[in-house]
Amino acid sequence: MTPSTGAPPQCLTFLTDFGLEDGFVAACHGVAARIAPGIRVIDITHLVPPGDVRRGAAVLAQTVTAMPPAVHVAVVDPGVGTTRRAIAVRAGDGILVGPDNGLLSWAIGALGGISSAFVLTNEMLWNHPVAPTFHGRDIFMPVAAHLTMGATLEQAGTRIDAGDLVTLSAPTSRMLEGEAEGEVLSVDRFGNVQLSIPSAAASELGIVFGSSMTIRCNRREITAPYLVTFGAAAPGELIAFTDSAGMISLAVRSGSAAEKLSLPPGARVRIAADTST
Amino acid sequence: MTPSTGAPPQCLTFLTDFGLEDGFVAACHGVAARIAPGIRVIDITHLVPPGDVRRGAAVLAQTVTAMPPAVHVAVVDPGVGTTRRAIAVRAGDGILVGPDNGLLSWAIGALGGISSAFVLTNEMLWNHPVAPTFHGRDIFMPVAAHLTMGATLEQAGTRIDAGDLVTLSAPTSRMLEGEAEGEVLSVDRFGNVQLSIPSAAASELGIVFGSSMTIRCNRREITAPYLVTFGAAAPGELIAFTDSAGMISLAVRSGSAAEKLSLPPGARVRIAADTST
Amino acid sequence: MTPSTGAPPQCLTFLTDFGLEDGFVAACHGVAARIAPGIRVIDITHLVPPGDVRRGAAVLAQTVTAMPPAVHVAVVDPGVGTTRRAIAVRAGDGILVGPDNGLLSWAIGALGGISSAFVLTNEMLWNHPVAPTFHGRDIFMPVAAHLTMGATLEQAGTRIDAGDLVTLSAPTSRMLEGEAEGEVLSVDRFGNVQLSIPSAAASELGIVFGSSMTIRCNRREITAPYLVTFGAAAPGELIAFTDSAGMISLAVRSGSAAEKLSLPPGARVRIAADTST
Repeated sequence: MTPSTGAPPQCLTFLTDFGLEDGFVAACHGVAARIAPGIRVIDITHLVPPGDVRRGAAVLAQTVTAMPPAVHVAVVDPGVGTTRRAIAVRAGDGILVGPDNGLLSWAIGALGGISSAFVLTNEMLWNHPVAPTFHGRDIFMPVAAHLTMGATLEQAGTRIDAGDLVTLSAPTSRMLEGEAEGEVLSVDRFGNVQLSIPSAAASELGIVFGSSMTIRCNRREITAPYLVTFGAAAPGELIAFTDSAGMISLAVRSGSAAEKLSLPPGARVRIAADTST
Repeated sequence: MTPSTGAPPQCLTFLTDFGLEDGFVAACHGVAARIAPGIRVIDITHLVPPGDVRRGAAVLAQTVTAMPPAVHVAVVDPGVGTTRRAIAVRAGDGILVGPDNGLLSWAIGALGGISSAFVLTNEMLWNHPVAPTFHGRDIFMPVAAHLTMGATLEQAGTRIDAGDLVTLSAPTSRMLEGEAEGEVLSVDRFGNVQLSIPSAAASELGIVFGSSMTIRCNRREITAPYLVTFGAAAPGELIAFTDSAGMISLAVRSGSAAEKLSLPPGARVRIAADTST
Repeated sequence: MTPSTGAPPQCLTFLTDFGLEDGFVAACHGVAARIAPGIRVIDITHLVPPGDVRRGAAVLAQTVTAMPPAVHVAVVDPGVGTTRRAIAVRAGDGILVGPDNGLLSWAIGALGGISSAFVLTNEMLWNHPVAPTFHGRDIFMPVAAHLTMGATLEQAGTRIDAGDLVTLSAPTSRMLEGEAEGEVLSVDRFGNVQLSIPSAAASELGIVFGSSMTIRCNRREITAPYLVTFGAAAPGELIAFTDSAGMISLAVRSGSAAEKLSLPPGARVRIAADTST
């Protein structure tokens, strides 16, 4: 995390639930290119399930840390056009722009916490006329593009108290007597199940790579080896590993752990050291 | 709309029905990068249903207006390799390149109408050998890339009469006695139903924001509030609004209006002021 | 194919099975942008079916030839984190970076064969800490980005013998008595069936454009015209043509040949001149 130097970021990242079948994402790219012709735009994903703010927040938080200093635009915004605020937040070496509905809150944490927060009120930086249902194109993206061209957050809006922002409840995880309890944070394309339990919890429970852990979910108790990578497992074998975000995850080599265990996002899971052996 | 200045556009946009599973889109990007290494390419969408020229035309027309001056390449081309012509058209501050099958016709209108039209005949600007089934890679994209590098339309081909181009029939919409009749233009990822009825028609019928409108479709008559944004609706509620392209659209908050009303593209719909209240 | 000049490629291409729903692809883009801020990245596809190394190899091989001189990063890597090696290979005017599981082998051939091969061992070019399950982000992409910035292959690792690399068996195709036998290489979005039989085989069998060929598959024998393009066929008609990669392919205009003939990738097909007419 480098401190902000004053030079504006030369990169935009973009996450939405707009999908890829329509021209919505492209319209936002076009608006950015008109304002900041040389800017690089990195699409994070546009396949957040429609309106799923928690899923958008999770993907954003797990991706922004890999980015160069950037203005991160995120739009999963079921309340578009209502009184929910449009905000820009400086956190670490990034600036996050989007609706004040909690979507940005976990990424703020991942980037190191808030330095300052603003409500977007300067309509001179917007695209006019503003469509009440498309703030991505008409407010968030043009403001973000202006920020990469040297506009300051102070010029974009009005400073607000960081404590005023809408925050999503963090996925819970807690240490119990000899167990860690968490929930399914996300299921990726491979059917890998990411838990809200950090790898440090496994260490604390005495679960080391090469040993077994007990997984309790859906009234079942399953034992699985805790391995460095699923690449080392036999096809069809259930294993636990530490994923690329540092969380305990479950995988089935050449298969889907989510399907095998019937574990959708939000499901509760407990892990413990396997003492049977 | 700025007049053409003589400097070539520094941006390409790209719309196809090629899908994202294969390398077809990337091959076109590669060809563009070889000819115009510094050019910015904005993908509009590559998920137009295979061969659906009307859908491609609609997405293109609704997106090009958000773009900077650009060469717009569009390929939904079931007649590839037949006698259908390959064309380039100057319209407003853009140039459109693609098959002469109507795909470009609505975008031409959206950009302000044709200035000049050309059939692509200069094979020196093509990629050789030309695959008879892949003009996107071998004709449209290389010609477009050369246009961004300073080649003129006159160098790319032979001038033709604008009236000679294939044109898609416009989605119909007409004012009846106290009603406006149109058709479903498109259904987006959110299940929002875009009608071919412009918001001006609602005004003309005396339907103002906050009032109700009657919607007749599929032998049913439904009443829905006409709101500024679906963000203001209750979950599950059907509402009408003016979408980001200026058309009357129907939405269900946290649901799909297309599903609720069984309205696929092309279905006929009438709207009127609700006089029951 | 131009010989390597010593100047590093100014382009990265990127193919994976990561999908587009998560932030995995974007994280790799971010890592590349941090190391090589000005680099152009062309995404080939990220929708290779999870772990399908042969499919990834086929798409890569058919796309790299359209690219400018580039570092091609490909990650379909079910053995990530195991002892399978990470490699970089110079072939033609390109450099290929990925796992040593055969994924790169067909593209190496398409680019003109290996000039030199290296195992990636220089951890100074990696992203730390290296996640055992995300070498795309932490090894392959950062090494590739450094190669575009002037790092040499010698700096990236240890030279190995080209004959040591894992190679996928090539899709088979052979000439029989008056027949060519091959297999279904791929099925594209349009349902077009690409065979492993090159168009030269059709010539050798005396099948010329405009004549008919006999197709034997699934215990059936079907006759289809061999046309220059499917654009010339009647809707619903099965035809054979030479596709944009130079292979014999089967198509149904406005339909799916794969569905009509029940031909998945790998299925065996024979073609012959139609002598019944």
